[in-house]
Amino acid sequence: MSIEKPAVKRAALIGSGVIGAGWAARFVLNGIDAVIYDPSGDSKARAKNILDMARTAWAALMPGVLPKEGTLSFVDSIEAAVQDVDFVQESLPETEDLKRNVLAAVDAVLPPHVIIGSSTSGLLPSRLQSGLKHPERFVVGHPFNPVYLLPLVEVCGGDLTSAATKETAAAFYSSIGMQVLHVRKEVDGFIADRLLEALWREGLWLIEEGVATTSELDDAIRYGAGLRWSFMGTFLTYRLAGGDAGMRHFLGQFGPALKLPWTKLIAPELTDELADRIATQSDEQAAGVAVRDLEILRDEALVKVIRALSSVGTKGYASGATLNAFSSRLHKEETANAVEAESSFVSWKGGVSPEWIDYNGHMTEHRYLQVFGEATDGVLSLIGADEDYVRSGYSFYTVETHIRHLGQAYAGMTLEVRSRILDSDAKRLHLFHTMTVQGSDDPIATAEHMLLHVDSVKGKSSQIPNAIQIRIEQTKALQAEQPTPEAAGRSIGIRRSV
Amino acid sequence: MSIEKPAVKRAALIGSGVIGAGWAARFVLNGIDAVIYDPSGDSKARAKNILDMARTAWAALMPGVLPKEGTLSFVDSIEAAVQDVDFVQESLPETEDLKRNVLAAVDAVLPPHVIIGSSTSGLLPSRLQSGLKHPERFVVGHPFNPVYLLPLVEVCGGDLTSAATKETAAAFYSSIGMQVLHVRKEVDGFIADRLLEALWREGLWLIEEGVATTSELDDAIRYGAGLRWSFMGTFLTYRLAGGDAGMRHFLGQFGPALKLPWTKLIAPELTDELADRIATQSDEQAAGVAVRDLEILRDEALVKVIRALSSVGTKGYASGATLNAFSSRLHKEETANAVEAESSFVSWKGGVSPEWIDYNGHMTEHRYLQVFGEATDGVLSLIGADEDYVRSGYSFYTVETHIRHLGQAYAGMTLEVRSRILDSDAKRLHLFHTMTVQGSDDPIATAEHMLLHVDSVKGKSSQIPNAIQIRIEQTKALQAEQPTPEAAGRSIGIRRSV
Repeated sequence: MSIEKPAVKRAALIGSGVIGAGWAARFVLNGIDAVIYDPSGDSKARAKNILDMARTAWAALMPGVLPKEGTLSFVDSIEAAVQDVDFVQESLPETEDLKRNVLAAVDAVLPPHVIIGSSTSGLLPSRLQSGLKHPERFVVGHPFNPVYLLPLVEVCGGDLTSAATKETAAAFYSSIGMQVLHVRKEVDGFIADRLLEALWREGLWLIEEGVATTSELDDAIRYGAGLRWSFMGTFLTYRLAGGDAGMRHFLGQFGPALKLPWTKLIAPELTDELADRIATQSDEQAAGVAVRDLEILRDEALVKVIRALSSVGTKGYASGATLNAFSSRLHKEETANAVEAESSFVSWKGGVSPEWIDYNGHMTEHRYLQVFGEATDGVLSLIGADEDYVRSGYSFYTVETHIRHLGQAYAGMTLEVRSRILDSDAKRLHLFHTMTVQGSDDPIATAEHMLLHVDSVKGKSSQIPNAIQIRIEQTKALQAEQPTPEAAGRSIGIRRSV
Repeated sequence: MSIEKPAVKRAALIGSGVIGAGWAARFVLNGIDAVIYDPSGDSKARAKNILDMARTAWAALMPGVLPKEGTLSFVDSIEAAVQDVDFVQESLPETEDLKRNVLAAVDAVLPPHVIIGSSTSGLLPSRLQSGLKHPERFVVGHPFNPVYLLPLVEVCGGDLTSAATKETAAAFYSSIGMQVLHVRKEVDGFIADRLLEALWREGLWLIEEGVATTSELDDAIRYGAGLRWSFMGTFLTYRLAGGDAGMRHFLGQFGPALKLPWTKLIAPELTDELADRIATQSDEQAAGVAVRDLEILRDEALVKVIRALSSVGTKGYASGATLNAFSSRLHKEETANAVEAESSFVSWKGGVSPEWIDYNGHMTEHRYLQVFGEATDGVLSLIGADEDYVRSGYSFYTVETHIRHLGQAYAGMTLEVRSRILDSDAKRLHLFHTMTVQGSDDPIATAEHMLLHVDSVKGKSSQIPNAIQIRIEQTKALQAEQPTPEAAGRSIGIRRSV
């Protein structure tokens, strides 16, 4: 399934706890107008807070390529919520009767072609849809917290859900950057929560029996198997443990261990005493750090882990590959918008990530060169020396760089680079980049580069081919009207006469 | 527990499957001589292969700061293996009788002060140690695959294990970069494997019942909860889900779900039919990619995830904090070695990470500036403008940079930067850096920087204080004998007379 722009322009959220508000944030950041109705009353503050956190996370995850945000609004009735929407997502508490009542009310006033997705983490869609007039448009779309960062969404239809509903819902979730897992057989808890629940129940036993505290249980995961689980599940991991002998050989070895008393494998009674013990241990584990601050830490870590996975292999791995496919679509759209809006040549446009900030509180110097380097790639692409050209065995190498810092860039700013070809000869290209903050004409940095055309197989300089020379001359001609930047050709030094 | 240099100089590995060979690799990379004895016969090829993979991973994880490797050798008897060793690590198959027999043989010939660690993933230390003459020096140190990358090690003593043995073993594991989890109560499966086993057994049921394939089960983890588990366990995660109302409130909501039929919670019978199904699904999931290639992918992802976590917050988070503490110790030792070995001022020494390589196959240009920027920090630290100085409200900002590229850097190279203070006045500092590949005097790049001293609170340039001026003059005097680099003060341009 290739990633398309979302077909949904406006969506209703029924219920706005952590999950509903997380959906709203993901929708808004995708340019979708989100309308929230929560039967339990006002939850504006939480929803806005979660949108703020999501905005920060996305700016760091995909700097500079985010579309114009949709709006976030709050209404007091189901009728108002579903007005003109293309999609409804229900995220009420996990009580079957409550969900069925509200879903029936939504179903009664929503045009039959609009899909209703439910965030239920384990209730059966066949039961939830059974009272609806249009059960065929009902489907489970079960996300994970934080919804705006974790890509997984389980899509599960009930007996009466149409194939078209499942397909359209999956395509929509995919279009907003998520990874769809089709749950083919309807079971309590679907797939992910059954696995999570097994681990959770075993953890409760270990606390009940005094073997480990909440903190020790968490450490047992996050310093070990949890690191692998961020990109590779248990089954592929165990395949590796089996080595070249393969999975069957591994199972043969592992089989006997299934008879060992290594799990309690029943849920303990959650007595007051056990709940007390867990709550006290959890307080000690948090060591006074507020939930809000833990959430910020969690989001920072998630963003960095997903970004790290985006550079594994040639196309990213696991969530990193999902991110690459999604942000590549956004990047293309954003560059198209920037080129359309500007008559001059914008060679780079994007945002300043939080991790680009140094101990002085502003963008660290090598990130300027990273941006200028990507701007150079933009110029090279314009004159026909793109990735295919590099693969053909030729390239331009930077041999000299002169950067001037004239202002500062801070986290969250959007930067633009405009580029000039100052000069060229048979083998060399002399470029000048000017970096500004979007909305201002004052440069915060400039870069002057000398590039040398090389035959990368021979490792030697070589003549720029005619096809590229023609495009260099065309670009120079287009830019001939512009004055030479006064900083071009300057050297570094303390001038004593100053 | 602060991280010290390992007290162990030579260690014996009894058993060299994936786990034993993983230990050997971690030991060797820490500068410890590792001696392998495997009762099942020759396993040299695997151990060497795993050491190669570990070396690649560590070079990427902690570029340029690794100590001189220890040796890896293979012997044919227990007596030869334990000769002159300071530590023994047993990693035999999980069969109690086999382990007890071999441990008794080791115990009989090993001086009583040397600790024996066992890699058992779930057998009880009290039973394993019961036949030993010196049971007090026996302790479980249970690691996770790959041992050279995952930090977790569970330390669990038996009834007869001395407190000193547990402490010394934990300090040793910590000194080689691991995160120790003390298992206070001896139970089958310890802590981590009980959690993993619960999830695994539930996964087997979902396959048995046709709900999901190995690939779907893995996706249910790695695109969702697995991303969080790489740095935050289930209990802290659920604390966040409870929001400001706290863990007790969350448990109150979650309690009823424990009654839901969300796990099978008993282990399925591993019939031939089920084993067949799993093996077939696993083959489909791997899609023809060899275990060796999956291992390389896994290691790349682990390295990148751990590195990503090392930049979360101010000191790194979870495994990232463990890495920072460990590599900081290595970095200090390595810089001390470099300064000792060199009479001139080495301002930066380190390796080229694989992620620093661009589409042309060599180090991308902004990474040169990253290294030069860190070299500038080294010079600033030398003249007293260190992190404390920045916190006091003053700093040097780079206002101009001139880089010349004279050669190429490739992944795995070790680079050195030597620095000169060319000039200075009341507010400005003029630096020149030369980058070479370790072992060569030919520069592959130079950088010239003009820095301006600023009052970062006022956001204005300000006079360099006397204390720093004195150290600048001292450094200039020390460097006065050296000729001015010929490239200093040059500008960029195509000189038509050339």
